[in-house]
Amino acid sequence: MKLRLGLPKGSLQEATFQLFKKAGYNVSVGRRSYFPTIDDPEIEVLLMRAQEIPRYVHEGVLDAGLSGYDWITENEADVVEVADLVYSKQTNNPIRLVLAVANDSDIKEVEDLQGKRVATELVNVTKKFLKAHGVEAAVEFSYGATEVKVPHLVDAIADLTETGSSLRAHNLRIIATILQSNTKLHANKAAWEDDWKREKLQNMSVLLLGALRADAKVGLKMNVPEDKLPDILAVLPAMKKPTVSKLVESDWLAVEVVLDEKQVRDLIPAIKRAGAQDIIEYALNKVIP
Amino acid sequence: MKLRLGLPKGSLQEATFQLFKKAGYNVSVGRRSYFPTIDDPEIEVLLMRAQEIPRYVHEGVLDAGLSGYDWITENEADVVEVADLVYSKQTNNPIRLVLAVANDSDIKEVEDLQGKRVATELVNVTKKFLKAHGVEAAVEFSYGATEVKVPHLVDAIADLTETGSSLRAHNLRIIATILQSNTKLHANKAAWEDDWKREKLQNMSVLLLGALRADAKVGLKMNVPEDKLPDILAVLPAMKKPTVSKLVESDWLAVEVVLDEKQVRDLIPAIKRAGAQDIIEYALNKVIP
Amino acid sequence: MKLRLGLPKGSLQEATFQLFKKAGYNVSVGRRSYFPTIDDPEIEVLLMRAQEIPRYVHEGVLDAGLSGYDWITENEADVVEVADLVYSKQTNNPIRLVLAVANDSDIKEVEDLQGKRVATELVNVTKKFLKAHGVEAAVEFSYGATEVKVPHLVDAIADLTETGSSLRAHNLRIIATILQSNTKLHANKAAWEDDWKREKLQNMSVLLLGALRADAKVGLKMNVPEDKLPDILAVLPAMKKPTVSKLVESDWLAVEVVLDEKQVRDLIPAIKRAGAQDIIEYALNKVIP
Amino acid sequence: MKLRLGLPKGSLQEATFQLFKKAGYNVSVGRRSYFPTIDDPEIEVLLMRAQEIPRYVHEGVLDAGLSGYDWITENEADVVEVADLVYSKQTNNPIRLVLAVANDSDIKEVEDLQGKRVATELVNVTKKFLKAHGVEAAVEFSYGATEVKVPHLVDAIADLTETGSSLRAHNLRIIATILQSNTKLHANKAAWEDDWKREKLQNMSVLLLGALRADAKVGLKMNVPEDKLPDILAVLPAMKKPTVSKLVESDWLAVEVVLDEKQVRDLIPAIKRAGAQDIIEYALNKVIP
Amino acid sequence: MKLRLGLPKGSLQEATFQLFKKAGYNVSVGRRSYFPTIDDPEIEVLLMRAQEIPRYVHEGVLDAGLSGYDWITENEADVVEVADLVYSKQTNNPIRLVLAVANDSDIKEVEDLQGKRVATELVNVTKKFLKAHGVEAAVEFSYGATEVKVPHLVDAIADLTETGSSLRAHNLRIIATILQSNTKLHANKAAWEDDWKREKLQNMSVLLLGALRADAKVGLKMNVPEDKLPDILAVLPAMKKPTVSKLVESDWLAVEVVLDEKQVRDLIPAIKRAGAQDIIEYALNKVIP
Amino acid sequence: MKLRLGLPKGSLQEATFQLFKKAGYNVSVGRRSYFPTIDDPEIEVLLMRAQEIPRYVHEGVLDAGLSGYDWITENEADVVEVADLVYSKQTNNPIRLVLAVANDSDIKEVEDLQGKRVATELVNVTKKFLKAHGVEAAVEFSYGATEVKVPHLVDAIADLTETGSSLRAHNLRIIATILQSNTKLHANKAAWEDDWKREKLQNMSVLLLGALRADAKVGLKMNVPEDKLPDILAVLPAMKKPTVSKLVESDWLAVEVVLDEKQVRDLIPAIKRAGAQDIIEYALNKVIP
Repeated sequence: MKLRLGLPKGSLQEATFQLFKKAGYNVSVGRRSYFPTIDDPEIEVLLMRAQEIPRYVHEGVLDAGLSGYDWITENEADVVEVADLVYSKQTNNPIRLVLAVANDSDIKEVEDLQGKRVATELVNVTKKFLKAHGVEAAVEFSYGATEVKVPHLVDAIADLTETGSSLRAHNLRIIATILQSNTKLHANKAAWEDDWKREKLQNMSVLLLGALRADAKVGLKMNVPEDKLPDILAVLPAMKKPTVSKLVESDWLAVEVVLDEKQVRDLIPAIKRAGAQDIIEYALNKVIP
Repeated sequence: MKLRLGLPKGSLQEATFQLFKKAGYNVSVGRRSYFPTIDDPEIEVLLMRAQEIPRYVHEGVLDAGLSGYDWITENEADVVEVADLVYSKQTNNPIRLVLAVANDSDIKEVEDLQGKRVATELVNVTKKFLKAHGVEAAVEFSYGATEVKVPHLVDAIADLTETGSSLRAHNLRIIATILQSNTKLHANKAAWEDDWKREKLQNMSVLLLGALRADAKVGLKMNVPEDKLPDILAVLPAMKKPTVSKLVESDWLAVEVVLDEKQVRDLIPAIKRAGAQDIIEYALNKVIP
Repeated sequence: MKLRLGLPKGSLQEATFQLFKKAGYNVSVGRRSYFPTIDDPEIEVLLMRAQEIPRYVHEGVLDAGLSGYDWITENEADVVEVADLVYSKQTNNPIRLVLAVANDSDIKEVEDLQGKRVATELVNVTKKFLKAHGVEAAVEFSYGATEVKVPHLVDAIADLTETGSSLRAHNLRIIATILQSNTKLHANKAAWEDDWKREKLQNMSVLLLGALRADAKVGLKMNVPEDKLPDILAVLPAMKKPTVSKLVESDWLAVEVVLDEKQVRDLIPAIKRAGAQDIIEYALNKVIP
Repeated sequence: MKLRLGLPKGSLQEATFQLFKKAGYNVSVGRRSYFPTIDDPEIEVLLMRAQEIPRYVHEGVLDAGLSGYDWITENEADVVEVADLVYSKQTNNPIRLVLAVANDSDIKEVEDLQGKRVATELVNVTKKFLKAHGVEAAVEFSYGATEVKVPHLVDAIADLTETGSSLRAHNLRIIATILQSNTKLHANKAAWEDDWKREKLQNMSVLLLGALRADAKVGLKMNVPEDKLPDILAVLPAMKKPTVSKLVESDWLAVEVVLDEKQVRDLIPAIKRAGAQDIIEYALNKVIP
Repeated sequence: MKLRLGLPKGSLQEATFQLFKKAGYNVSVGRRSYFPTIDDPEIEVLLMRAQEIPRYVHEGVLDAGLSGYDWITENEADVVEVADLVYSKQTNNPIRLVLAVANDSDIKEVEDLQGKRVATELVNVTKKFLKAHGVEAAVEFSYGATEVKVPHLVDAIADLTETGSSLRAHNLRIIATILQSNTKLHANKAAWEDDWKREKLQNMSVLLLGALRADAKVGLKMNVPEDKLPDILAVLPAMKKPTVSKLVESDWLAVEVVLDEKQVRDLIPAIKRAGAQDIIEYALNKVIP
Repeated sequence: MKLRLGLPKGSLQEATFQLFKKAGYNVSVGRRSYFPTIDDPEIEVLLMRAQEIPRYVHEGVLDAGLSGYDWITENEADVVEVADLVYSKQTNNPIRLVLAVANDSDIKEVEDLQGKRVATELVNVTKKFLKAHGVEAAVEFSYGATEVKVPHLVDAIADLTETGSSLRAHNLRIIATILQSNTKLHANKAAWEDDWKREKLQNMSVLLLGALRADAKVGLKMNVPEDKLPDILAVLPAMKKPTVSKLVESDWLAVEVVLDEKQVRDLIPAIKRAGAQDIIEYALNKVIP
């Protein structure tokens, strides 16, 4: 028995392979191939356009796949969400589907789109959103480069954005957010009923989430004189349980703790002032609470 | 005194430099140079075609070198094998020298090559193998791109393969394996008699093997309630000796263990179920048992 | 309030961004942009030519910046040195500004430059150096590719070099070193008087130096029988204070130590001989003594 | 007044720009822009996906455009065909839309697709073709990489091919050709009624066709003794009218002729044997009969 | 005797080499070399930054060079202008040095720069221009990327532009043009007095100008019935003298003419209507009137 | 019947394809394929290492091929030379096989190689040459990068060179030329006896040589007043027979001539002085005398 898993080809592919590597799966593929090898003989991977993965999971051609919430919704795919994975091409910002118009357009809010023309790669999602706002507009399918179509070809677009910088560069203004779209590990409903497949997917979920969590965390070790321990603990974030062990033949303690990388910028100077010595920081592959 | 070491130029170069880096030696080289710098003043490195290294080690122009077992054999080089290093360009599979014919050829086994024409970069090894099977065939030297020569120019080839995918892509079928060829750190016999050089090479061998071992392993730390320790230990592979230390003023233990990266995929869910908390995984540079 | 920080565009940019990443700051920038984003809302980063940063720090347009000692001196910038950072494009060698002439030139020492023509990107520094040696020479500004100007266009050059290899490749000979130029984190004098900015810069200095220190160090863990500890400690460098903790229900100790990566090549074989087992080495992000 | 012209972005873009250049129009565009400049102030060019151009021409957003007959049909665009332009990315073969199945599939002809699943980028055209053959099948939209979907995801595909080599490389077998698709210069119906726009487009058509014709032709000049002229003319293709002029003060004639480049391979040896001398061949930009 | 010629390294290098090739000189250079080879043994070429060429021509280190009028002026080089060459990296537009400010700046004209800060690579030219307008401003040397300095670092810049598109992309507004800057073939005054060098440079000038002229022109040939000649000549531009020759044994004429490439777009349809047949167009290497 | 033709893969491939294109044959090949397509259905092309082509032509596996005289000799291939083609990667210089030693070596002439070690890719040719000079030396096969082997691994090398610049860059000194090696179109002896194949090859030879000749030549046209013709003809090289035709209703003549491109640099100024007007130069595809 094998688990058939669809992974996204293209701009998200490299980040996905790296995430799987950190999670413990080596996935590799020739430059023009769509059939990667994975070092788990119980999994078969297919590379596919992210747009199509939810449809094939829904239909059962795949047991599970990774794709954005946007495409799951667009395909009206009736699938099980196994894990919510916040990662993307460039940043750790979530991807959003937004409505945008030209900077100098008269259109200020969703309602102003009445009777206008909107281009988008996600026609279903956009139509549904406009309908919910009581707006009738011509929504047309765009094959790409959607952001250059305003104002020459259409009045507005519904396009995906991570930082908004591409929209700004094209002199577009966001007037509404249709949805926020993290990547989802999602499963076919029948596959999820299968015990072996469900456990396989749950384990994969633990490892993927553990790897994502580790991206933003680091390990810290330091030596602390026994009498200074309370001061050090006072500085460290309350919810973190440090590992404290006594050193042989001395009154020093070894303290270890896992912290958010961003906190470390402020904490290192503070714990040094509080008496810690020989502080070292190291990177983590996975963190499982 | 310096140790003269030959490293392979070309497709294996990048992987070799990374292996040495992990082992603790920084080797770097200009894009078109053959004389790398290394941050150990007692070693002098020369880049060379892998095919030629065993010959120069045999002749004593080099004290030692890295090359495949295939080329050591082809050159009939009488050298000392210091370490067997399993690494390669793409995968961790060993490289094999195989005999291959066209998919639709009548040739099914080695004996069918009687009177046929075989192209290969390893003429000596191939001739010897055929002779040992009682086969007489015309073995001709190929300058490369050997796999495209069947069936236009020759009946069969003896070619190196890691995954077999290039052979399959050219519609070739493997009929026999001539030899398996790991990379070998090998030394000139006289150099090996020299105490200083032998110790230098043995230390290098420890570090290279330590780095290779670490590639497939990770470190795992977790906190475990004292009473759950036996359950955790039961889950961990028997042969691994975990480091267990008592935390200060608590009934928790810190457990550390080094594991195969592939086992971790199954172990993390298991040890979590057995009561471990705050599990972190980190990468290793070297593992020396 | 924001700290305005100038970072060098160009050949040093990538190394600088990596150093900041290791220090805990994610800096990223579009391929053609000069306005990076940084994940600290209290800092605003501007990319600029290294030559111009000290001038803008001096004038207060920037609060602080990273640039070489060479350009601080050339700009006669009156600034506060916050940290001395030894890193560069290729190696960890410091960059030097040297006077060089053609290999076969009659010029042997600085004094021989009397009445000659010297091309350089650092006109002020070079003039001052020559004047201090009592030499009068025509020093002309070079827009780049300075090393090809000898002997066709000028008699000597004052040029920056890391390894000297570019000078050698152009058949040039060094006759004197004008100055050694590490990168400096330097601050505007008024900004340094501001408590908030000074503390911000001091923290940044701790983190940058911690990251640089970690580049050349590794962590080592091993298990040691209690009675072998003195032998192990004898092998380890005296000044390093290892962390020793007792393992539960055994007479083994866990020993951890941070070492220079280069020492490890010799120490691992030695501590193994002295009785250590299960030695692992891991990489470090930061080391703060 | 301006003529709004849509040109295809992407794989056909470079070939299109070169064709326009030969025709006498310099079109250039920044690497990420969709708004090229053209050195004719009466034309405004927009780059767009070939798939979308016929739709926008049909709707009048564009006056005219270049796109394949396939996409004109898929969009059911009611437009005027101005010129039939046979050129493509690699070869001068026309592009065809074909139905293809796995080499070892049982499907042999169109009728065998009854009840099967077909993936294609041209859903309308494919559905219409199947219906015309009395076949009912599920035709689903493919976002690309259609040829890898057989047999894992679908039973057959309808895909564009120039040489068939990509289909062969994926082990697919063609069972029918749906349509042949040259590139068409096509115009909006209302724009065609406008005298100024129609003449503008007709002139453009003359120049584009003249440039395409010149691709396959060369000019040939030679000197011929007066009495050998009949022999030379007998060798040259009957329909070509050579330009013959008498040289001053001699009994030699200068003969010029425009020929298909492929004929030249055989004609040059022949006319040389027939007595021509000083034969030169030169390239042509345009040929207008 | 050799002519020492300086050609610009960098962005203009490729266009310069192509111009020389068309003029009849093959110049080639290794990727990192500054000493090209040229297939005229009487010329020695040096590659140099365009900024420095006029200075070295002025000083006589070079006999002649190619550089922009901007840098000749900036260097206050007293040289002889041999030829005015209108060519550039991208377009055939001349390069201009312009003063630019932020789009939303209050600065509207040159006079508003009183007391402001201006960054530029051409400090002398800019200072002189401002002085001539009675404006006192701080003009500071910029090492590059000048257009990103507004408004963070300076109030205005004086920068080179060909199409203005880079300025627009940085939201800058041009307020004045300081100078227009074609490339000049310019000579040292003493070299110009030398008969051999002057003739060498004059010949080079004829060939370079002939090649530049040919860039915008094409040759046209056609066959015309004798009685239609007046109509054809009426259509062709008056100032062009066509070459008309009578064909042997017929009442047709062969007409050849050299035309501006841009005129051809309109003329070809016109001369076809006027009765010309078998029109061919071909490219030209050089045109010398 | 087909002609089987071997063309060289690798560094000479691009230049070879361009030569064939100019000769009238379109050869194209996928990036990793060895089986090009050619637009002549009577020819079948195989790409192969230049080293192996003569062997396969000799054996009759190929009817004909292109390879250097060096490899024909090295393979001791008994073949028919059809055409001598002087073209190469970079320049139009012939390739030479030379003996080279370190700049500071004591070896000054061939005889000094007695008892030394020589590395080369052409072992047979080199051995024969040394033997002819009465020199006994160890000649060993080199897999490439031969020029870096002196002086570390061997005393001398026999290597191919076009300009000598690579040898100079490695500080090597040429002591003798073993042979000069143009590319040869060469044929199998039996194939040459076949009338159809011989004529096919002879035609190909005419076209290839015509294309090569055209590389160094240009066409020149000018208008000349009848009375100035003698002066013009006096300037033009004697051996060139210009085409002179009288213009209709005028006393001007049209003069056309084909010249060496290098002569044109001097001739254009001269013929202009002699009274020619409206001189145009155009490029040629083929020149057949």
